[in-house]
Amino acid sequence: MIKDDIETTEENDVVETIEQVEAELVEESENKGQDELSKANERIAELEAKLEEAENRILRIQADFENYKRRARLDQETASTYRAQSLVSDLLPALDNFERALQIEAKDDHAKSILQGMDMVYRSIVEALKKEGVEAIEAVGTQFDPHLHQAVMQVDEPDVESNVVLEEFQKGYKLKDRVLRPSMVKVNQ
Amino acid sequence: MIKDDIETTEENDVVETIEQVEAELVEESENKGQDELSKANERIAELEAKLEEAENRILRIQADFENYKRRARLDQETASTYRAQSLVSDLLPALDNFERALQIEAKDDHAKSILQGMDMVYRSIVEALKKEGVEAIEAVGTQFDPHLHQAVMQVDEPDVESNVVLEEFQKGYKLKDRVLRPSMVKVNQ
Repeated sequence: MIKDDIETTEENDVVETIEQVEAELVEESENKGQDELSKANERIAELEAKLEEAENRILRIQADFENYKRRARLDQETASTYRAQSLVSDLLPALDNFERALQIEAKDDHAKSILQGMDMVYRSIVEALKKEGVEAIEAVGTQFDPHLHQAVMQVDEPDVESNVVLEEFQKGYKLKDRVLRPSMVKVNQ
Repeated sequence: MIKDDIETTEENDVVETIEQVEAELVEESENKGQDELSKANERIAELEAKLEEAENRILRIQADFENYKRRARLDQETASTYRAQSLVSDLLPALDNFERALQIEAKDDHAKSILQGMDMVYRSIVEALKKEGVEAIEAVGTQFDPHLHQAVMQVDEPDVESNVVLEEFQKGYKLKDRVLRPSMVKVNQ
């Protein structure tokens, strides 16, 4: 019995020791593993955040790029549409003078022939301008339009329709949909 | 002694058992930890690769963007520099006719006055073209230059310097540094 008791006590001790060692070992091993694992998880979280940021950045840059392309295309189209504007604007006074010069009355056939030749030149210039999108604004007989006409004189003629352009003092011109210069007109009230 | 032996044997057994359990536990715990850790490390490697790829992509898109901007700027500059080319090219035949018409000999003062008025119109057109960068190419008396002149006739005059332009049949024009039309000339061999 004594021996048994002793043995039992010893066995219990051994069992306790084993359990204790077990627990310590598992804890130690787990702690060590947990440590590395939690570092790895931190790194994963960090990398995931960086990746998300990078992907958002890609989306932003791509959107900026697309916007830039669209804007550049529009700018280019506008620049192309009105490319002749500067030259045309500079040519308009010459065109006015040309028209005035052509209105001189020819006193003889010689002068008439010269003016006919000049009229052909004038027409070919107008044709070249038309090809680029330049057109004279209609005025006399049309309804007055403040976007196209500039009223420099107003009259009150009861026989004529109201708000109609009666006379044109200087021709107006449009380049495509853009008014380069409004017509200077006399308008009925 | 016997008891001691027994005890020793038992103790050895216990020690072995403990060591065995220890090893198993550590292995098990380590295996479990290693498993999670190696999965985590795989994920880290995967994320690092993705992040590197994303960062490279950002660099590529940024480079593309910069290239596009530079090209768009250059295109825009070129388009702006030669914006009048189309209209000017269409105006050149009218200008030729204008010059021809001005060369008519005035038989009287009336015709002379008309031609003087037309000459002013012509000059103002040339002035407007010049403002846009259009200039007539120098020809008569200059060295023949195949970039500027087109030889439509060759003569052999020993008294005159070789390779010199002797006559101009049609005026040539440049828009800034670009030849719109070479001069048509007679050149000495």
